[in-house]
Amino acid sequence: MEVGDALERARRLADLNAVVTLNDKAEVEARAAERRGLRPVPIAVKDIIYTKGLRTTMGSRLFKDYVPTYDASVVARLKRAGLIIIGKTNTHEFASGATTTSSVFGPTRNPLDKERIAGGSSGGSAAAVAAGIVDVAIGTDTAGSVRIPASLCGVIGFRPSSGSTPKRGVFPLSPTFDEVGILASSIDAVEEVFKVIAGRKGRRAEARRQLRLGVPEGLIMAERDVERAFYDIVTRLNASSVKMPLTEGRGREAFTVIRLSEASAVHLPFKDVWGEYFPDVRRLIERGLTYRAVDYVGALEVMRRAREEFMKVMRDLEALLLPSTAVPAPRIDEVLGREDGPIRDLLTGNSWLAPLVGAPAISLPLMRVGGLPVGLQVIGKPGQDLELIDVARALLNAV
Amino acid sequence: MEVGDALERARRLADLNAVVTLNDKAEVEARAAERRGLRPVPIAVKDIIYTKGLRTTMGSRLFKDYVPTYDASVVARLKRAGLIIIGKTNTHEFASGATTTSSVFGPTRNPLDKERIAGGSSGGSAAAVAAGIVDVAIGTDTAGSVRIPASLCGVIGFRPSSGSTPKRGVFPLSPTFDEVGILASSIDAVEEVFKVIAGRKGRRAEARRQLRLGVPEGLIMAERDVERAFYDIVTRLNASSVKMPLTEGRGREAFTVIRLSEASAVHLPFKDVWGEYFPDVRRLIERGLTYRAVDYVGALEVMRRAREEFMKVMRDLEALLLPSTAVPAPRIDEVLGREDGPIRDLLTGNSWLAPLVGAPAISLPLMRVGGLPVGLQVIGKPGQDLELIDVARALLNAV
Repeated sequence: MEVGDALERARRLADLNAVVTLNDKAEVEARAAERRGLRPVPIAVKDIIYTKGLRTTMGSRLFKDYVPTYDASVVARLKRAGLIIIGKTNTHEFASGATTTSSVFGPTRNPLDKERIAGGSSGGSAAAVAAGIVDVAIGTDTAGSVRIPASLCGVIGFRPSSGSTPKRGVFPLSPTFDEVGILASSIDAVEEVFKVIAGRKGRRAEARRQLRLGVPEGLIMAERDVERAFYDIVTRLNASSVKMPLTEGRGREAFTVIRLSEASAVHLPFKDVWGEYFPDVRRLIERGLTYRAVDYVGALEVMRRAREEFMKVMRDLEALLLPSTAVPAPRIDEVLGREDGPIRDLLTGNSWLAPLVGAPAISLPLMRVGGLPVGLQVIGKPGQDLELIDVARALLNAV
Repeated sequence: MEVGDALERARRLADLNAVVTLNDKAEVEARAAERRGLRPVPIAVKDIIYTKGLRTTMGSRLFKDYVPTYDASVVARLKRAGLIIIGKTNTHEFASGATTTSSVFGPTRNPLDKERIAGGSSGGSAAAVAAGIVDVAIGTDTAGSVRIPASLCGVIGFRPSSGSTPKRGVFPLSPTFDEVGILASSIDAVEEVFKVIAGRKGRRAEARRQLRLGVPEGLIMAERDVERAFYDIVTRLNASSVKMPLTEGRGREAFTVIRLSEASAVHLPFKDVWGEYFPDVRRLIERGLTYRAVDYVGALEVMRRAREEFMKVMRDLEALLLPSTAVPAPRIDEVLGREDGPIRDLLTGNSWLAPLVGAPAISLPLMRVGGLPVGLQVIGKPGQDLELIDVARALLNAV
């Protein structure tokens, strides 16, 4: 894929609101990369990740003219490897929402049905890949922000293990859970770009015997049609049922307490200008203020025990399977003004487990419901990102 | 020192309330150690550290008959090395106080003046060493609980670097800051016992040139006489003034938020029985409930930045000097019923810095004020515990 072609498609598909700022130096940078002997590969980067000299808005009115003076560490790594940032992709304001509708640029539209949302918060990145503007884009994932739009747009979405990528120059949401992730049209692109942003060296995939897969039944949220599609796959893959009682009982609440408390701490210094935030984003931040310190400390303890429980279950398994979202893409007109209503729960109901236990997770476009895609989520073991990518490759071939 | 002699002295000095439970198997254990070729050394252990088969009360009415079924990890290590637990030492209830007056056994008395407190919360351990019952005793230090009673009783008190000792079987107070520490009559005993509880191997001390010492003027709390004695030493040692603006402005409040929030989280499950707690302990736990999650998250961020600031200052220094306490031992009748009044501030005002930055700190009995001891506190670099012990040895020889 050529950088010039990507720019041209981004311009032509501007109505999607996927790429919201074009890098007008991209072609110059591509030629410079060629002179360094590198093959320039176009990539798009979520608009909460700092790009030197290129507007970075966080999807917020407050930052609508903000131009960073330095590159985020992941951006610097991409550039060194010859990847060319063709532009910035739309995000839900401050990455704090699952729909990419509350943005200074307006909602991102789903390339598969423009009346539907792309999901979020990395909706622009998912839509850019789904529309063929780029083969790969960078997102971030705190509570599902890579996997949810991947699920709704029918692309691959990878959230690496906690701590595997540098966070300098990435606007924080909830530092305990924030990770830089990848949206892509192929698993090979995921692997290649992951190695770049995580600073990993190559590694030969091992020949894999029969995969041992688990299904955490008590942790799955799915509407009827998604559930049916999901269990079709589960049956074909011969996955076994697993139980995590502590996580089932207390995991989601603990995740929410940590996620919201940390976001509120990040935004507390901006309290005077909360009136400028989108209402759904502001409400979440205000909710985070209601938790007590003892709730947060207790939630960290639940997280520690959930990690132990998860590691125990994973001793005999390569991966867990869940749907990525409980539903396919909702319509934009059903979402606007109701971003933090029941739709939020349906979109995020399956995506908190991986960040809670620090595990890598990938959404694969392997299900279809009513003509729309829904992702199959595959969760691996913390630190074993390349192994999970191998599992994903095997599943893409098998299903 | 013989185990039998230590037991005899503990019985004779029972009115101090230093050793509150005797181990009636101590002499049998001493003979067993001899048969293993070890020299049995008597030691006393604070009553919030679990000892298998030996009553462990946490100083609390609620645990007054509690007999642990296992040894804390540090106790197991002591026993393996041939140290003999002659008994348990008095503690402020749940280690949550600086005076060792709120205990189911009543106040520990200072062996140097029985009308005065021994300090706390490891007051029994400090008093046992000061009274010559044992040469070395184990305490714990969260906010100064080893260094404060060492200061008031005129013995050495060592708080190791954060994370250097195992915490299994130690009743938690504030896990971010909790450390197992040592009270002893000699620096050699401190080094020997530290190596045992931290699982360290021997190491030759390096010949030390001129010590570079700093004084964080903006962080020192001292009454006039203590201040005078402190600056006498500072001048003799040619210590230089250092500044830590962030820590001076926000360190103590951040420390307090973390310390109290975590203790309240530990005790929240026991809310129904808080009526049984000593009033000062209960008030602290109730105060911890008033902090918001965002306060705690913000305090952790201040801690992170204070550590950076501390490491920067320490680049050119071997150690920082502070008084261990702002005052010598107060009278028991001035403390009772006012444990959490101004006296608490005077006792803990200099002891929060080391735990906040994770550094090792040692209190040396090098000052006297009005005929009573006050400790000189020496703070080293995180992880460099044995280096700090060398610095302490040099100071004991120099001053």
